[in-house]
Amino acid sequence: MNQSSENLTDKPSKQSSDSVTRSVSVAVIGAGTAGQNAFRQASKINKDIVIINEGFWTTTCVTVGCMPSKLLIAAAERAHDAKYSEEFGIHSEVTINGRQVMARVQAERSHFESYIEKQVESWPNDKKIAGKAHINENGLIEVNEEIIQAEKIIIATGSSPFIPDDWEEKLGETLLTSDTVFDLPDLPESVAVIGTGAVGLELAQAFSRLGVAVTAFNRENRVAGLNDADINAKAIDCLSEDLTMHLKSTINEIGHKIDTDGKTAAFIEYTDKDGNEGRWQGERVLVATGRRNNIKQLGVENLGVELDDKNRPKNLDKHTGQIGDLDVYIVGDANANIPLLHVASDEGYSAGSIVCNQNTDAYIRPVAIPFSIVFTSPQIVNVGMTQQEIEDDPDLEYVIGKVSFDNQGRSRIMGVNCGLLHIYGCKETDKVLGASMVGPDAEYIGHILANAITNEICVKQLLDTPFYHPTILEGLRTALRDVQHKMAIPYQSLDTQEDGF
Amino acid sequence: MNQSSENLTDKPSKQSSDSVTRSVSVAVIGAGTAGQNAFRQASKINKDIVIINEGFWTTTCVTVGCMPSKLLIAAAERAHDAKYSEEFGIHSEVTINGRQVMARVQAERSHFESYIEKQVESWPNDKKIAGKAHINENGLIEVNEEIIQAEKIIIATGSSPFIPDDWEEKLGETLLTSDTVFDLPDLPESVAVIGTGAVGLELAQAFSRLGVAVTAFNRENRVAGLNDADINAKAIDCLSEDLTMHLKSTINEIGHKIDTDGKTAAFIEYTDKDGNEGRWQGERVLVATGRRNNIKQLGVENLGVELDDKNRPKNLDKHTGQIGDLDVYIVGDANANIPLLHVASDEGYSAGSIVCNQNTDAYIRPVAIPFSIVFTSPQIVNVGMTQQEIEDDPDLEYVIGKVSFDNQGRSRIMGVNCGLLHIYGCKETDKVLGASMVGPDAEYIGHILANAITNEICVKQLLDTPFYHPTILEGLRTALRDVQHKMAIPYQSLDTQEDGF
Repeated sequence: MNQSSENLTDKPSKQSSDSVTRSVSVAVIGAGTAGQNAFRQASKINKDIVIINEGFWTTTCVTVGCMPSKLLIAAAERAHDAKYSEEFGIHSEVTINGRQVMARVQAERSHFESYIEKQVESWPNDKKIAGKAHINENGLIEVNEEIIQAEKIIIATGSSPFIPDDWEEKLGETLLTSDTVFDLPDLPESVAVIGTGAVGLELAQAFSRLGVAVTAFNRENRVAGLNDADINAKAIDCLSEDLTMHLKSTINEIGHKIDTDGKTAAFIEYTDKDGNEGRWQGERVLVATGRRNNIKQLGVENLGVELDDKNRPKNLDKHTGQIGDLDVYIVGDANANIPLLHVASDEGYSAGSIVCNQNTDAYIRPVAIPFSIVFTSPQIVNVGMTQQEIEDDPDLEYVIGKVSFDNQGRSRIMGVNCGLLHIYGCKETDKVLGASMVGPDAEYIGHILANAITNEICVKQLLDTPFYHPTILEGLRTALRDVQHKMAIPYQSLDTQEDGF
Repeated sequence: MNQSSENLTDKPSKQSSDSVTRSVSVAVIGAGTAGQNAFRQASKINKDIVIINEGFWTTTCVTVGCMPSKLLIAAAERAHDAKYSEEFGIHSEVTINGRQVMARVQAERSHFESYIEKQVESWPNDKKIAGKAHINENGLIEVNEEIIQAEKIIIATGSSPFIPDDWEEKLGETLLTSDTVFDLPDLPESVAVIGTGAVGLELAQAFSRLGVAVTAFNRENRVAGLNDADINAKAIDCLSEDLTMHLKSTINEIGHKIDTDGKTAAFIEYTDKDGNEGRWQGERVLVATGRRNNIKQLGVENLGVELDDKNRPKNLDKHTGQIGDLDVYIVGDANANIPLLHVASDEGYSAGSIVCNQNTDAYIRPVAIPFSIVFTSPQIVNVGMTQQEIEDDPDLEYVIGKVSFDNQGRSRIMGVNCGLLHIYGCKETDKVLGASMVGPDAEYIGHILANAITNEICVKQLLDTPFYHPTILEGLRTALRDVQHKMAIPYQSLDTQEDGF
């Protein structure tokens, strides 16, 4: 689904509309999650449609994103649990076969890709164009030898890993990004991971648990972009158990060199948070400094789309992806709004539905509330409003319901007792505004709170639901009760029940 | 919290009310989860109260129930995952130290018990009576040398493992029940588990995964009391992977004998489901044929309480535990309604709140909807109405939304892809009536559906909630969509979205 902007520099000369080779009502550019969903949805009503894609016809998620990273993490968790179960009376001599680890990642990835490939194969050939698209000055889509006039254009060109400055050249063959890391035939001996956002953090911990010597760097004293200072501190605390991190560090120099023994090594010269200079040397550098939307050189300005200084389209309707009142929809990672699979899926679905005028009763899903999961151990979740957003809103007064998972019953039983949950509750109503958490099985607590926020299920209703014993969710209950106690609603204070085993 | 009915046979002679040694407004009999909650709650308002308990002052859950079983399961899961991670490229030579396994179970159990013990210690000594209570013909409570007159009596005498016929004698020292199994100093070499309900199934699988040779027997072709035939069949299929089960078998003889080498061995002669006779011989027999409420010989008939032929109190208000309009409340396992921790906790809380007349604004939690979890791998969950209950209701028309977890994305990634979920949806509304599931992390899917049923969150609302990718909960989404497609609500059929990776 890669419509890589780097490859779009050779802009073609101006074409007159006379030379149009094909006219369609809808053109979809990009065949990742958002583009495929848009095409599939629009095709249900409209047969006069084309989809254009450069590179692989699968998705970021399945080929270089969610799926292979979760596969690597699954192996890492197995290795970690096997190694560290002495306290349970289970002793293991563990051998990690790096080639087998990567082979499973790749084989399972192929399995998941095959579903998408089969679906794409089922689409009529004359509706699929493999090639790089460019929108010319007349607003026509140029691709290969074709010039396509489209009444409506859905742009779903995705995103690509961002590599700062001249690092690509400096790191040479030692450079890894999320685009290349899952193709490794074997685990490296050592890796520096630059960036402790979701992608960097997941891969750093997974490699570390798989026996790779990992050193992670981040310029801020922050992991997973956490906004709540206490949760961030706790996450750093939990993750430091099996990960060396230089947070709030500065990278002064980066590069690679051929050692005296002929081996290529990467190096990083850095200043740590205390001002001490250090040097790391190892096999590979995984650059995980974020992703950028593939849009800059597509020519969207020729459609009337304005980009801001960060290449985000102005006047984006976050519900449908439409740009102002133009017949242009920018969906998925390409709009640089929320680069998450489920959002891309929704946006593609919505845009694909509404571009078909006949489809007046198209169901457009409500905009998903903010929700993110980082699949580390323990997991990190943010849902709803951030603490900062709440504090910035002068109309909102909030309380924080808290629970530590360090001594929570079931978490302790399972040996996964490290974590902290903050629920931001509205003080005047009994609604959940948002939450931030690091802790065991946080993905599930995140979904339960996402459901509560989406459907305005109040704290009291959540507490009227049975909580089975012993579960990690009893920790959620403790935090919800803490919200209640701190609220300004009188009857809530009576609504207290102590835990009983 | 054990008010064992067997020890109550020596009924004292009739006492006149003149000899009353203490008069209280509230007496709580039994200090398990329900009794302690009732006492704590009533004590907030009423100081004129006493709690009577025979045996340990902790709870069934923490000492012989939920907690130690989950501790054993935690060790079993570690052992299993360590042994079977070759497909991930992780190879382990695993040694299971049975003494360490049991030592952790016991040490952690003591840790959890200590919380309860501390709380009980904090109660005034003159309000606690250690001894076995009996209610005499005048409705007075006799305990030790005391005769207590109570305006209101809360009975929370719990339950005990049921041992059929003369098996206790026949099995002798080879007999194990859930009351004794967690005190074993080491793992046995072999165990027969009789009964594949929740307790038997959890322990059978856990022991098996810990290297014990386990053979499980059940007279029905059913595990975990599953009512949905497809879910039952799937559960048997999943569990048979690491557990030998003789379902629909008959036990013809059971006993123990001294072998020629002086070792005691237990034996079971049985007829299997195909009519073939077999003989099992091994170290221990764990009898897990259910629990019975401890009430028969307490003397509740002297308070006007009638018991049915299964010793269940008639006229039980399931909300408060009150018996008809008597000043008697029977709560927790003792009422033989729903023998689950969270229900006992609620019932004790409710009864403790309402026995205090002054406490007019006591918050009584709504009766919890039916919800049970069996913590096997995969887990088994039932929530809401059973399929049978729905079919028995002539006013209900239902559809079954289904999803298999055998090839579900995240489940497959984690190597836990065995399972099936059935959601029973009301055909005319879009409400969830109930669900039955065997599958990975079913406890969380159970809680989400319990929340939906409790708070009447409809299927469409659940589907408007973001489902993160890749998660096991996407399986839940598939089943919810399947419910939608089968419903009689027109707009729902438009509300379809295909999965995209």
